[in-house]
Amino acid sequence: MKTKQVEKIRIFSLGGVGEIGKNMYVVELDDDIFVIDAGVMFPEDEMLGIDKVIPDISYLIERQDRIKAIFLTHGHEEHIGAIAYVLKKITAVPVYGTKLTLGLAESILKEQGITNAKLIEIRSDSEILFDKAKVTFFRTIHSIPDSVGISIHTSQGAIVYTSDFKFDQTPYGKNRADLGKMAQIGEQGVLCLLSDSTNAERPGYTGSDTLVAQEIADVIYNANGRVFVACYASNITRIQQVLHAAKMYGRKVAVVGKTLHKVMDIAVRLGYLHLPEKVTISIHDIDRYDDKELIILTTGGHGQPMSALARMAKQVHKQVNIKEGDTVIVAASVMPGYELVFSKTIDALYRAGANVIYRERKVHVSGHACQEELKLMLNLMKPKYFIPVHGEYRMQKAHANLAKAVGISEDRTFLIDKGDVIEFRNGVARPGGKVPYGNILIDGLGIGDVGNIVLRDRRLLSQDGILIVVVTLSKESKKIIAGPEIISRGFVYVRESESLLDEATKIVANIVNKCLQTYMIEWSSLKSNIREALSQFLFEKTKRKPMILPIIMEV
Amino acid sequence: MKTKQVEKIRIFSLGGVGEIGKNMYVVELDDDIFVIDAGVMFPEDEMLGIDKVIPDISYLIERQDRIKAIFLTHGHEEHIGAIAYVLKKITAVPVYGTKLTLGLAESILKEQGITNAKLIEIRSDSEILFDKAKVTFFRTIHSIPDSVGISIHTSQGAIVYTSDFKFDQTPYGKNRADLGKMAQIGEQGVLCLLSDSTNAERPGYTGSDTLVAQEIADVIYNANGRVFVACYASNITRIQQVLHAAKMYGRKVAVVGKTLHKVMDIAVRLGYLHLPEKVTISIHDIDRYDDKELIILTTGGHGQPMSALARMAKQVHKQVNIKEGDTVIVAASVMPGYELVFSKTIDALYRAGANVIYRERKVHVSGHACQEELKLMLNLMKPKYFIPVHGEYRMQKAHANLAKAVGISEDRTFLIDKGDVIEFRNGVARPGGKVPYGNILIDGLGIGDVGNIVLRDRRLLSQDGILIVVVTLSKESKKIIAGPEIISRGFVYVRESESLLDEATKIVANIVNKCLQTYMIEWSSLKSNIREALSQFLFEKTKRKPMILPIIMEV
Repeated sequence: MKTKQVEKIRIFSLGGVGEIGKNMYVVELDDDIFVIDAGVMFPEDEMLGIDKVIPDISYLIERQDRIKAIFLTHGHEEHIGAIAYVLKKITAVPVYGTKLTLGLAESILKEQGITNAKLIEIRSDSEILFDKAKVTFFRTIHSIPDSVGISIHTSQGAIVYTSDFKFDQTPYGKNRADLGKMAQIGEQGVLCLLSDSTNAERPGYTGSDTLVAQEIADVIYNANGRVFVACYASNITRIQQVLHAAKMYGRKVAVVGKTLHKVMDIAVRLGYLHLPEKVTISIHDIDRYDDKELIILTTGGHGQPMSALARMAKQVHKQVNIKEGDTVIVAASVMPGYELVFSKTIDALYRAGANVIYRERKVHVSGHACQEELKLMLNLMKPKYFIPVHGEYRMQKAHANLAKAVGISEDRTFLIDKGDVIEFRNGVARPGGKVPYGNILIDGLGIGDVGNIVLRDRRLLSQDGILIVVVTLSKESKKIIAGPEIISRGFVYVRESESLLDEATKIVANIVNKCLQTYMIEWSSLKSNIREALSQFLFEKTKRKPMILPIIMEV
Repeated sequence: MKTKQVEKIRIFSLGGVGEIGKNMYVVELDDDIFVIDAGVMFPEDEMLGIDKVIPDISYLIERQDRIKAIFLTHGHEEHIGAIAYVLKKITAVPVYGTKLTLGLAESILKEQGITNAKLIEIRSDSEILFDKAKVTFFRTIHSIPDSVGISIHTSQGAIVYTSDFKFDQTPYGKNRADLGKMAQIGEQGVLCLLSDSTNAERPGYTGSDTLVAQEIADVIYNANGRVFVACYASNITRIQQVLHAAKMYGRKVAVVGKTLHKVMDIAVRLGYLHLPEKVTISIHDIDRYDDKELIILTTGGHGQPMSALARMAKQVHKQVNIKEGDTVIVAASVMPGYELVFSKTIDALYRAGANVIYRERKVHVSGHACQEELKLMLNLMKPKYFIPVHGEYRMQKAHANLAKAVGISEDRTFLIDKGDVIEFRNGVARPGGKVPYGNILIDGLGIGDVGNIVLRDRRLLSQDGILIVVVTLSKESKKIIAGPEIISRGFVYVRESESLLDEATKIVANIVNKCLQTYMIEWSSLKSNIREALSQFLFEKTKRKPMILPIIMEV
């Protein structure tokens, strides 16, 4: 069965390039739109108070009748975490994914109250026929099972998106990468490859998960007390390794953490995690066992490994705390921006008396391909054009250099930013303009109601605090009838700065009184006069610049 | 000449253990107090708005008549940066240091208006006699010239503080480590060694500065356009290497950055930096030269290498910006906590079209000893007791493990925290209680006026902003005469949240009116009622917790 001719192909990213996370790629075949992944990103330092970031999908919302499918490549938050937000705006679009991926996506949808999503399960050998494309999949190895790459076969050639992958030649468990299928796709002709740049700066190969399993087992075997293992909640491979080691050495595993419980429940139910008999116990029952019989498996908020550990180390965790003689395996790498939290937690663990296993021994490996593996993927796919995705610009750039090394000339590699369109006609690519893109910030229940101004204010407030001046005026008598009162937060200790604040109060009173004597009182200029005078006065006295907020009440 | 018998020796740290920076160690020989180093620390993430942190020296202030000397071991801010704050409180104490160290300390003192300090220059072969100790020094290799370790010889044995050091067997320039002298001190008997733990987690040896010089020269030789070199302002060795390479390949060096100019001026004046003839030019003259004739040497705020580069990459630097074809050498490692800033800057440089040299090539090495060098120091000194200093707890711990490996039994190693005293009598050590210690935060002109409450407020403000409620009441009529008015910053976009804020206003009005009907109005309970009701309402509606500040004006 043949698909129709495609005149114009457009490929762009709404998230996932120039950054780590919130992956979302769009492939347009003439009028038909295909969306790949819908991920969230966890906020960077400067996004004060923000919980999550998702891609701005206004482009898709306006064209939703043209969207044929959303494909989810694997169950990590960075690839499925925004699916509820997307399906709230874009209804009636089928969502394709493998069993585990859909299981995890469904749990996200349920939390957000979406029950009518059209979820269609695929297997790695599924073929889905659309008007202008046949879509196929290939199994990849990643830190979560049931990960696939996707291939959109069109009349101009295949568009291949690897998603997150690595080539572990001795992977843990039954999963194997579909090397043969990848080679076959490459032989048939790949028009454009989008491949994972996360580790493009790292030479060599990512280590094998099988060696990690041995290392973890070895640490557990040699531990004289309790063993804590901290990992990402979504790292089902790592969890399975711990469960097996527990079985092998007769330890019980207590699981701590809501996300971890949730992910494990789904994975067990769908057959992706094997719970050995009589191995798991409730955390409330750990006192019934000797220390040498226990493993505590834990993760934290957002499924991050360090937050629960930090509380356990500081003896403030509600369920279990670290004590002298514990062994802690940190089976996770540091997320960019979380380095300080990471090392502070390691410190706290040592102080609490634990033996911490984190860097010297290979108790964790990345789920992403390093340079040699990325070159292997490029050589298997032999794409005509190449778009490095997943990663900060420098990682995309490093990936482009690898492509050059294997023979893809620079003019066939596109270092795109979010919204940059690459357009293909007759198998020839050229830049095709820009579509709207952006960050939608999620803070509590608010989606997109925190923007640059609110963030700027939070940043200002965090630096030198705020100083509020309230004064109540009488319109009639043209007099101050209450105040000026000055209140500050996050600026100085009030008790030690009384004279400073007294002087500031006088300055305000003077300005207000002067203004009241004028014929026409302009509130806005009065406010800006107060702001200016106070700002100057306080900077002179303290070299600080608190936010100054004059409030004038009229009676 | 012999020194008097010492009955009791007490050693403790007021800064520099359990952290990186603000080094300050105290050695007490009976009643005589010796202070070693007076450093600052740059603030960690959670210290919002803070500029610098210095040790709390109240212990020393109360006992200043007993202080015999302050020794400065080298010219880095982490070792001399607090000297002005110390000398403001502790006057009339002589400060000893080598020529360059004192030159840099003097410049700090001058900035803070201190001109009457008693600065006494020493050389590495100086011997200073006190009542109960002879103090000698030994040359070490570090990233700034004129670094020394210090040895306090007492009747119970020597107390040796290595300060920052590494063992570069082929160091750049004329400096050599005083290996012979160190061995001699060791032979004579070291009671207690305090040694640098910064790199105690890193195996092997720190690379040689001579190889770095070759690598930098090589990059400069091969560059086709301008070369930017970013380094710490205090890394005089690195600066010298760049100047030599410039001379060798006929390039001019333009220096950008106030701190860099200041440090270079001092180093040149005192003979620690050699300016080859006709190599340096003003940054304003760079247009007169070809790109291939230029090197721009730069640093940033606090002498940190990345901040100026970031502005240059984003095209907002006042003097010079990055353009296509530039080569940027980042001759610095990342400070803990600055990883994100570092990688964002690298990204921005790539985006601006620069070729960035930072990790793949050895254009920088640490100034601190790795594991093999630390063991060498331990073996040279053969101390009876050992106190690992400089570093987070996990680094001290790693250093203790090294000591164990070379034969210093665990019970002779003290993993101290700030304020922990180790006491020696008859050459035998035991824990000796605790002295007061702490962080003094410097924000603008304020020293110590920002404490936990102010920081807590800044943290709260940074998360969800602030919501201010103002209402003016009449005492007589018992009525609201103006307001309630609600103003928020950093919470939500006001324009999109009108109904939310309207509803909040009504809630406040209700509470106030109800309260006004009571016989006795208690302001504090009114305020807490408002706070509680609003907090609950807003959390329900938004899942956010802004700081809520009720202000009641009485007329």
